[in-house]
Parts: sequence; C-alpha cells; structure tokens
Amino acid sequence: MLNQVSKQHIRVAQNASGRSMNVPVYRIKGQRPGPTVYIQSSIHGAEVQGNVVIYHLIQWLQDTPVSGEIILVPNCNPVGTNIKAGEYTLGRFDPVNGTNWNRGYYYDEQQIQLFAQSVTDEESGASIKQRFRAHWQQAIAQKLASPWGLGLAQQLNLRLQQLAVDADYVLDLHNGPVSTRHIYIPQYAKDSALAFNFPHCIFIPNAFAGALDEATFCPWWTLTDLLNARDQRTLDFGVEAFTLEMGSQEVIDFAEGEIDATSIISYLTAKGLLPESKVTPANMTRIGVALADYKTLYTDWGGMVEYCARPGQHVKEGELLARVLNIDELDNDKGSKPVYAPCDLIPMLHFPSASVLSGTQLYKCFTNYFTLSEGS
Amino acid sequence: MLNQVSKQHIRVAQNASGRSMNVPVYRIKGQRPGPTVYIQSSIHGAEVQGNVVIYHLIQWLQDTPVSGEIILVPNCNPVGTNIKAGEYTLGRFDPVNGTNWNRGYYYDEQQIQLFAQSVTDEESGASIKQRFRAHWQQAIAQKLASPWGLGLAQQLNLRLQQLAVDADYVLDLHNGPVSTRHIYIPQYAKDSALAFNFPHCIFIPNAFAGALDEATFCPWWTLTDLLNARDQRTLDFGVEAFTLEMGSQEVIDFAEGEIDATSIISYLTAKGLLPESKVTPANMTRIGVALADYKTLYTDWGGMVEYCARPGQHVKEGELLARVLNIDELDNDKGSKPVYAPCDLIPMLHFPSASVLSGTQLYKCFTNYFTLSEGS
Amino acid sequence: MLNQVSKQHIRVAQNASGRSMNVPVYRIKGQRPGPTVYIQSSIHGAEVQGNVVIYHLIQWLQDTPVSGEIILVPNCNPVGTNIKAGEYTLGRFDPVNGTNWNRGYYYDEQQIQLFAQSVTDEESGASIKQRFRAHWQQAIAQKLASPWGLGLAQQLNLRLQQLAVDADYVLDLHNGPVSTRHIYIPQYAKDSALAFNFPHCIFIPNAFAGALDEATFCPWWTLTDLLNARDQRTLDFGVEAFTLEMGSQEVIDFAEGEIDATSIISYLTAKGLLPESKVTPANMTRIGVALADYKTLYTDWGGMVEYCARPGQHVKEGELLARVLNIDELDNDKGSKPVYAPCDLIPMLHFPSASVLSGTQLYKCFTNYFTLSEGS
Amino acid sequence: MLNQVSKQHIRVAQNASGRSMNVPVYRIKGQRPGPTVYIQSSIHGAEVQGNVVIYHLIQWLQDTPVSGEIILVPNCNPVGTNIKAGEYTLGRFDPVNGTNWNRGYYYDEQQIQLFAQSVTDEESGASIKQRFRAHWQQAIAQKLASPWGLGLAQQLNLRLQQLAVDADYVLDLHNGPVSTRHIYIPQYAKDSALAFNFPHCIFIPNAFAGALDEATFCPWWTLTDLLNARDQRTLDFGVEAFTLEMGSQEVIDFAEGEIDATSIISYLTAKGLLPESKVTPANMTRIGVALADYKTLYTDWGGMVEYCARPGQHVKEGELLARVLNIDELDNDKGSKPVYAPCDLIPMLHFPSASVLSGTQLYKCFTNYFTLSEGS
Repeated sequence: MLNQVSKQHIRVAQNASGRSMNVPVYRIKGQRPGPTVYIQSSIHGAEVQGNVVIYHLIQWLQDTPVSGEIILVPNCNPVGTNIKAGEYTLGRFDPVNGTNWNRGYYYDEQQIQLFAQSVTDEESGASIKQRFRAHWQQAIAQKLASPWGLGLAQQLNLRLQQLAVDADYVLDLHNGPVSTRHIYIPQYAKDSALAFNFPHCIFIPNAFAGALDEATFCPWWTLTDLLNARDQRTLDFGVEAFTLEMGSQEVIDFAEGEIDATSIISYLTAKGLLPESKVTPANMTRIGVALADYKTLYTDWGGMVEYCARPGQHVKEGELLARVLNIDELDNDKGSKPVYAPCDLIPMLHFPSASVLSGTQLYKCFTNYFTLSEGS
Repeated sequence: MLNQVSKQHIRVAQNASGRSMNVPVYRIKGQRPGPTVYIQSSIHGAEVQGNVVIYHLIQWLQDTPVSGEIILVPNCNPVGTNIKAGEYTLGRFDPVNGTNWNRGYYYDEQQIQLFAQSVTDEESGASIKQRFRAHWQQAIAQKLASPWGLGLAQQLNLRLQQLAVDADYVLDLHNGPVSTRHIYIPQYAKDSALAFNFPHCIFIPNAFAGALDEATFCPWWTLTDLLNARDQRTLDFGVEAFTLEMGSQEVIDFAEGEIDATSIISYLTAKGLLPESKVTPANMTRIGVALADYKTLYTDWGGMVEYCARPGQHVKEGELLARVLNIDELDNDKGSKPVYAPCDLIPMLHFPSASVLSGTQLYKCFTNYFTLSEGS
Repeated sequence: MLNQVSKQHIRVAQNASGRSMNVPVYRIKGQRPGPTVYIQSSIHGAEVQGNVVIYHLIQWLQDTPVSGEIILVPNCNPVGTNIKAGEYTLGRFDPVNGTNWNRGYYYDEQQIQLFAQSVTDEESGASIKQRFRAHWQQAIAQKLASPWGLGLAQQLNLRLQQLAVDADYVLDLHNGPVSTRHIYIPQYAKDSALAFNFPHCIFIPNAFAGALDEATFCPWWTLTDLLNARDQRTLDFGVEAFTLEMGSQEVIDFAEGEIDATSIISYLTAKGLLPESKVTPANMTRIGVALADYKTLYTDWGGMVEYCARPGQHVKEGELLARVLNIDELDNDKGSKPVYAPCDLIPMLHFPSASVLSGTQLYKCFTNYFTLSEGS
Repeated sequence: MLNQVSKQHIRVAQNASGRSMNVPVYRIKGQRPGPTVYIQSSIHGAEVQGNVVIYHLIQWLQDTPVSGEIILVPNCNPVGTNIKAGEYTLGRFDPVNGTNWNRGYYYDEQQIQLFAQSVTDEESGASIKQRFRAHWQQAIAQKLASPWGLGLAQQLNLRLQQLAVDADYVLDLHNGPVSTRHIYIPQYAKDSALAFNFPHCIFIPNAFAGALDEATFCPWWTLTDLLNARDQRTLDFGVEAFTLEMGSQEVIDFAEGEIDATSIISYLTAKGLLPESKVTPANMTRIGVALADYKTLYTDWGGMVEYCARPGQHVKEGELLARVLNIDELDNDKGSKPVYAPCDLIPMLHFPSASVLSGTQLYKCFTNYFTLSEGS
C-alpha cells in the first residue's frame, strides 16, 4: 500500500452501563502538503450507507498519492446507531429528549465579530485563517468544559466538530428516508456542484440552523463578508462544506457505495488532493434549487399511503403524488383519497412508512428548480 | 351494485384518553346459501398491504353473485397500527409488555376432549359442527368475562376470534419484513395450496402456538382425529385456515394488492362461494416446505448488513447471503464479513434494517423444499 | 348546579387508521361579564396531573358565581398521551421526528410591527386589544391554511392557540419528571406570583421559544413596549400567561390535585372572576429566580444514579447531589462516584430514571434565588 | 482485605456498531471449600437496584471468611440497560421483537429422562450431581453452537446460565414496576423463606416457563422425582434458586440496597457459606401464597389511573384499589370510575404509569395468602 492509514478511537459518550462509546477516526496523510478534508457518516444512526462510502474511499485512497490529509469518521454516532425500536433504528434524535443528533454544533456570531476586531487590514489571509481556527477551537473547548455540563447530542457534536474545524473541505454523509441522491451546497461554492456527481443540488444561504455543514461554512462566510466589507478586501478562505444525501436510510449497498465514493474522489481530485487521479465529474444532468424552494408536503389526513411518485421523478402540477387508503370507506368511492402535486416538482424523498398520522411529512420536493448542467 | 355491503364497527380496546378503538367489519351476504369466510388484515400493525387487498376484494365482490357470506375486517388492530417509534410502526407487539399481537387467540385441548365426550357415534357431522362452534363461542365468551380481566392483546384476539369461529374458511393477511409471497397451510389442507397463487407454501402440523390460523384449525383437526379414531369414522368438517404473507411490511401498493385479491378470489371460487366467477388458479411453479424445514438464520456478529440474496432467490450451499460491514476494520481485509448459505435454500424474507445486533434474525429460509406444481 | 358547563370536542389530528383524535373543551360562562381564562393540561402526554386539577376546577366552578368565562381543555394532546414505549408514556415529543409538543405555537414579531403601524396614538387600549386579537387570530388561521400543510405538532399547537388567543389569562398545566411545584411567570406580571400557592417562581423575559405561555404574552409585551415607547403611552393590556409545574409526571393524585385547584382558584379570585370566592393566597414562603439562573446540571458519566437531593431541598455548595454507581468497579473505592452541588441551589426536578448516559440532564436547579414572601 | 475478588468480563453480545457488549463477573473464592453461589442482577434492564445490592455484598464479603465460592454478575444485560425510550429504560424485552429477556434459558425434559437412564441405583448423589451438571453444561454449549445461530435474548440467557449451572444456590435479583419486596421460592425449598427477610413469599411448582430460577431448579426437581420414584431413593441435591423482587424499578437507593444485601447474607449464613457471620434472619411477619393465587388485575377501561392501594397494603374485598379519570366526563359523576378489590388481597406491585389502555395490568396481588412467620 502506498499510504499508511492511521486509526484511533475517540470517546464521545458513556452508556448507562458506564462503558465508553467510541468513534473510529481514520487518517490518511499524504507525502505532499495540501488541503485537509474531513468526512463523517451516520450522525443520524439509521443513515448507514455513508459507512460503505467511507469503506470504498479508504480502499481507494490507500493506493494513490495524496497531497494533504484526509480524515474519515464512519459511524460517528454510536448512540444513535444502537437505539432500536422495533426492527428499525431510531437514529435521528436522542430517544430521551427528542434532540436531533445534527443540531448541536457550535456557532456564535458574536465570537466572529469579536475576532474580526483583532484583524487588521494588513493581516494576510493565511494568517487570519490560522488564527481564526485557533480561536474557534478554543471556543469549542471552552463550551465542552462548561461547569454544569452539556447535553449528550451537543457533546457528541462538539467532539466531532473539533476534528472538522481544521479542515478545508467538510463532507457530512447522510441518507434520506426513501430518497434519491441530492446534495446541500453553500451558495458561495455553487461551482462545486459540478465537481460531484449529484443530480440534485440545493443551494443554501448563510444561516445557521445547527448542522455540521452550516457550522463549518457560516463562520467563514460571515467573517469573509465582514472583513471584505469593512476593509474593501477580496478575501476568500476557500473553506467548503456539504451535506451529501446518498439514497435511502436503513440500507447497505456496496455497489451503490462505490458510485458515491467515485463522486467524492471526483471532488477531491478537483480540489487538488489527488494529483495522479484521473477521475473527472460525470457527464450528467444536474438540477439546482434554492433552499427556500425545497418544500415539504404534509398530509392533512391520517391513513395508509401509497407513494405513487418516485424520488427523482419529474411531476407536473396536478399529477398524482400519493393515495391515502381509508379503511372505513372501502365499500364506496371514498376508499382512497388522492394527493396531487400543488405545482411542478421533483420529489427528493418520501416518508418511509405507509402508516401516517395527519401532519406527516409525505414528500420533500424541488420546486422552481433550474438546470445546472445538461448530460448528453 | 349486486350485493349490499353491510358495515359495523366493533370496539376492541380503549386508549389512554378513554376513547374507544374500533375495528370496521364489512359483511357481504350472498343471496344463496354457502360457506362463511372470514378475512382479516393488519393484526401486526405495520403489515398494511392486506388492507389494500380487502379494498380490492370488496370492490370485486360487490358486483358478483355470492353463495354464502364473506366477512372482511381490515386494520383489525388499531392499537398496533398507531404506535409509531421513529418513522416506522412498532406493530408486531404491545409496546408496553412485548406481547406479540398474534399469540393470544383461544385454544384449550381439554375443552375438545370434554366436548368429544358429548358426541355419540351416531351424531351427524353437521350437528357436531354446529354444536362445537357454539361450545367454542361460549368458551371464548367465558374467557372474555374473566373477573380479573385480560391483557390487551388477548382481549383484541378474542374479540376477533368471535367473528372467525363460525367461518369455514379463515384468511389472516400478513406481510413479512422485506419479503416475497408465501403462505402457511395446515397439512391436511395441502391441496388448497394449488387454489391460491402463492409460489411458496409452508405446511404446518397440528400444534397450537397462538396464531389465528392455528386457533381456527387446531380445534377441528384435534376433534376430527379424536372422533375418527374413537369411532372409526371419517368425519371431515372442511374448515380451513391460512396465514397469507403478501410481500413487505410498511408498504401500500394498489397494483400488487390486486394480484393478491385475485389469488384469494381464485380460492373462494374453488370453494364454491362465487358461482359465476371464472377465476382459476395461475399456471405457476409452487414450492412447498415442511414447517420444520423453514429455518431462521441468525447473525453471530453485530454490524451493518448488505442483504445480497433477494427473497425468492434460489441460493446454493456456500453462496453469499449477506455481508456485514465492520466499521473498525475499514482499512484492512476484515472490513466486511461474508455470511454464506449453510445449505441450499430459498430466503422468504430478510430483516428490514441494515443495522443489526448479534442474534438478529437475518433471513428465514426454505430448506429441503419440494415442487408442488410446475409452471409452464 | 349554578353554572351550566358546555362541552364540545374539537378535532386536532387524525391517526394512522384515519380516525379523528379529539380534544374535549369545557366552557363555563358566568352570568356576569368579566375576563376570559384559558386553561389546558397535558400538552406533554405523560404530564397528566393537570387533568385532575381541571376535574377539581370544574367541580368547584359549577357551584359558584362566575364573572367572565373559563375555558378548560384537559388532555389537550391525545397523540402524546397514547404513545406508550414500554410501560411509560413517550409524551414530550412526536415519536416520529422528535418535535417537542410544546414548541409549535405561533409567534411572528414582524406581524406585531406591522400591526403597530395601524395603531394611532389616539386609539383606546380596548380597541387595540380587540383589533390585535383579531389580527392574531387571522394570522394563525392563515398559517393553518398553508397550501403545503403543516407538521402534526404545529397543527395541534395552533388549534389550541386559537382557543387561547382571546383569553386574558392563560394557564398551561405541566408536570416535571420527578418534581416539586414551580411556576413560570413573565417578569412584568411578577406580582401574580403572590396570588398562586407555588413555593418556587421562575421569572422569564420577553423571548419567544415556542411554548404557549410565551406565545401568549410575548405578542402583548412586545406590542406594549413598542406603542408605549413610540407614543409615550402607558398602555397595559393586562394579559398574563403561566406555565404551572405541579409535581411529577406519570402520576394521578386526586388529593394533590385539589391543592393545585385551590391555588388556581386563588388566582382567579384575585383577578375578579369569582366574585363570591373567599379563597385567598396561602401564607407561605415563595422563592423567586430569574430564568437565566435556573440551571441544568448534566452528568459527565453514564451509569446508575441515586438522586440524593430531593426536589425542593436547599443544598449548599459542595454537598452531595447524586451518586453514580459504576458496575465495573464494585470491588474498589471507585464503585460509586459522587456528584456535588457546584453552588448553593434548590433542585426543582431530577431525571426520572436511574439509568443515564453521559450528558443526561440530572437536575434543574434554582441558583441565586431570592425570597418573594415569607411564610409565618 | 481478607478475600481477593477476581474480576473478568465476558462478551454476551455485539452491538450494531460491531462492538462487544460485556458483562462483569466478580468471583469471591473462600479459603475453605463449600457450596457455590451465583447471583445476577438486572436481566431486565430497568430493574437496577440489584446492582447496588451486589455492590454492598462485595463490600461485605471482601472482609469475612468464606467457605465455597460466590459469583456475582451485576448489570447482566447490557443490551436491555441501554435501550432508552423517552426518559425511561425499555428493559423488559428486546426492542426488536418483544422477547422477554428472562425467558430464553435452557430446559429440556427429554434430556433429563435421557440422563436418568444413565444413572444406576447405586450411583452416589454426589456423582450424579457432578455428572448431571456436566451433561447440562454440554447441552447448553451445544445449543449455543447451533449452526443457524440463536436469537439475542437466548444467547444472552445461555451465556449467563453457563455461569449458573455449577452453582448450588442461584439468586436472580429483580424489581417490580412500583413494588414492595417479594420473593419467588420453589415449593420444595419453602423453609428457605424463613432465611431471607422478605415479607412476601410466592411458592412455585415444578413448571418451566423460561426464567433463570426455573431453569435452575426444574432440572434437579424433575431428576430427583424421577430417580426417587424409580429407585425408591431419597436423593436431595440441595440446589435452590430464587427470584428476589426488591422494590421498584428505575430506582437506585444505597440504603435500601444494604437492607437487601443483609437479607442475602442471612441466607448465605444459613447455608454455611459464611462461617463467622452472625447475621440471622429478621424477626418479622412473612406471608406466603401459592403461585396460582398470585393474581393479575387488568383494567377494563383505558384512562388515567390513581393507584389508591399501596403495594404491601392489606385490602379487603370491595375496598377501593384505584380510580380511573375519564377526561370526557369531568362535569358529571362519571368523571372518575372506581376499581374495587374483587376479594381480600395484598397488592405486590402496580403499573408504573398513570396512563393506561384497556387491558393493562393494574395490580398483581396475593389472594388466599397465609402466614409463614409472625413478627413480634
């Protein structure tokens, strides 16, 4: 093997038996300098396919020259993965209090403003970058040392964020319920949409809602805007962060994982980490949407649902999306109620169970979408 | 419409708000006399596809002459259907105590022996049948009237069984986790395997384990054996009961439901309930297995599983069934562990989640199977 | 009976069987005019004691003259009450997605600013109050009519809020896990602390975090501040809202419920709704704390916990709060780890289970508290 | 310290992250020979108080001479302890399939009959005892080596049983939901009731239902009966096994744990394991009941329950046990429904949540009980 993979385990929690719950951290350090990449998977415990993607990445990266360092953390949430409720995995939130496992990363706009005051208009971008990372690391460490303690999800998130803060590129590998591939991209890095092989791209603004991608790019984005406006500079720190949604949860598929690993290799190649890689982005149609146009359709009725529109399918306004069976009216024409598309849309995902209460999120959909690239 | 469908609701439970939980009972009574059929679905709350099958049956049966009576009870377990845990339905057991919703039907061998003592060798089969039903109804009613009360699952089961006791043919509609079509058939009714369109048939002996099919046929089977042996008679009461496993849980699919409805129509036609029906069994390969050869494969390891063998696929001894990803060994050749078929087999179903602890039921498989009919 | 109690049911959800889930609404309308009071209980499904309090209130209020109207909604969350997981009730959040049932009420600061523009400095307080209510009702109705639908928790919250918007006094009845009595009071209504019989009072600022009390008082508070600052007026709309935490969840206790009903009667008497009531506040010690000083103590270790400090007990800095058993060190002096009070404090509640993961909220505590009233 | 405590960990499962789940095994081996004792706790994950009892036992036993060996296994079910669902622990059954964690121990009556054939009427009791243990160990090992694997609960049970098979005295430490102290005793060992300090004793017959105590004594009981009847001998192998129910689940209480540890020390002293111990059974009233008279009371109604009768309280026929609040009838005299004692009884435990569906086990009660010892 060309590259040595180093492996350590970090403790992120302790269970009710008092045993440590550890996360494996794989590091591939290239012989040449270059950017740092941080990739994690399964922060939502049932979204396991990213672990296969990391498996393929490690296999691939062991045998190719690397410029820089790649840190890979599969199964980064051992608590979430191990909460079964029935046959499935209750992986999206802490079963004790409902806290989403992907909403406790650190962000504090005041800290950015404070830091900005320490920057002169003569300080180099490289120096600012280094100092800001140290500043942010310290803020996270201080948060973790809180004398009254912190909640489990937040502790987990902060310990992972400590690994991610020094990275230039952060990839958080997720899955949807029943889903087709889509990716969240910060608006300022929209060109990177063309470096991955994702057919559906969601562009997000500079607003922190708790997730790792936002926790990564919001500080840099905010700092850049602040300094550039204040000092009439054109600083660009080059940090990018993405949430990759690679198909459906509760599924392991080695062949599909290889496709997504290739997509990531394509991005890393474009970013200069893999000097001898010949992997280029696929020739494919890519569709984009603004986050504000990525809409959730809730059902008004409880009942049992057939999901007629498949994720990825182009649906016209008024076409059938779903049908809700009504078990009390099977002998008449109200036996099933249709749900129609309120406008032209592309569903990205649908709810994974046929049984729904009213107010269940049936579909999440692209609306007002546009073409980024045309496949030939 | 040719036939009137009558509909009533029976109360099977009361929830923690003190509200009644009702089950819809549809009855189609033919103009001519004939057998009674009882069909229920969704005793396991996540196994919802039977509700669609009943929908199609009711649509079909409204417009065709019927000899006899057909009672249809969709969504027969409103408690199980409504326990969500995460996005899925915790439908197989009572979330309070783990009791399987399909194990509390009434059976008491002593009652059969007691009843047999009341039968003379001159009593007609028809008379015995009528009296035994009354006897069994009374026993269930007495059980339900227990002065210390009964558990929720048992109450639910007994109230449904009260509807089923008078039926000649009982069909309990289920689904597997991720599953292909298969059917449980009592050994004495093995010919009926050819009247349904199920490619996989499991033949079960006269042993009561709590389910509705057994609760239906075990009493008649035991009584028949007892009287025939005692009095050298050849009584045959003609009661049959089946558990139909029609694909995967958590799914509603109207088109697939029509296929299963047709299969049931084929059986009802064969049994004389539908004098003008032209529906005949499909020309298809049917494979049989003894219950003792229907085997469960448990995993020795915990981890994340790719299910390589599809339900229904013929797998040879030593072929790959599944692969378990080991997130701590992604950098070496122990990154995934193969699970091989211990003998020639056909998986009927596999676990629906990729995340498994050791001791999880990975597959249930036909072994030592044989051909019942050859499709051309 | 002196007063007629009217009772209706409103539909707040539909379950997976397609059945309506209803909430009972009791209304006691006095013969004389007066303020409107809205009281609900059990928005968190396991916090059931408020239902007993409402029972006692209805019994009491039927026989006494009332000026104004009292609306009482027990068991206001039929979904939460009916999700069992094991023997307990998973009542604090939607089991599907983790959404807290008490965080989806409507608030929109922009709507207040918009409304303020329509107010002249000559409009009377009464007129403003009436128009603002109508404005707010319309905003909620519009939210509920959202063409893409709304999530279950939010739908539930908004339908309840529609009942509460017209009230002058809103009481949301809760319980803590293992808890002593405490009450949340908006800072501007701090005098009302002396009208209830709660020994522990938390004063909260004008910041909306999603709960019903905040959703009630934040709009009025914000509007008042805005208009009074703009027009140099001293408007006071007199709307008050409270969250009452009346002991421990998962418990029904009729005798304790009578104590809390009396406390509420005392408040209603002070507010003029019960002209003939002689109930006055108890002579008792009341302790207050600012919300910022109401602190959560998280455990750093997982393990099994003895809660040594009782809710309500005054604990000095450095005294023992809890002990965590370590099952791997029972043969040495690390068999149990002590948790000490980080400062002088009074625990209000502790976690209800002995088994905790790291990062579990062990205690919520008053710190920097002060005396509101001295009992003699 | 007088005695060395040896400690090892055995692997009983692997979680979905592929990590081993271990159980701590403490062994105290006396300098002098004597019987072997096996004590485990928390096979039901929420029943944690036995872990404190084992803590106190280990503290006590380190400093006193021991004849024989004592094996202590706290927290013997690391899977069950770590399944949280809401704030509580879903500890009684496997969350995947509902299997009770205390029903998968090995027992096979045919194996006993087979073994009995190998015993001559001249073989000594000691020899039979040794050979039967080896026979049983082998049968368990064979079961564990099953080529198709075994379910998780059964694997866990068998691995623990391997530790227990060689013991003369087996103590399985449990808790009830909300419970007073009671103990299960095999009828043949009824004198041992007087060696413990349990006020309530349930005498059980020779019938295997899956639990560890039965799995321990049923084989010896059956073998003894078989050989004594066949060969007119009066063999007595002296093996005893008990299930100790020591108060309520979800609670750790060090002071209460010391009381139960003393009770066990009293039993071990009586059995000769602690030659210098002066601990004698308490002078107390002990009440006995046949298992058939230990009855479960189910509620007919769903609703919210006040448990009026405390565990341990003597209740006369017709006295009030519980009250069910009916939230739809709070304005009339059906607002609460009383539940009366169907006969004279002593409740041992009641359901731990106020919210119940119909068919919930409200109370388990002694009926037709009798006095074993009178306290003075």
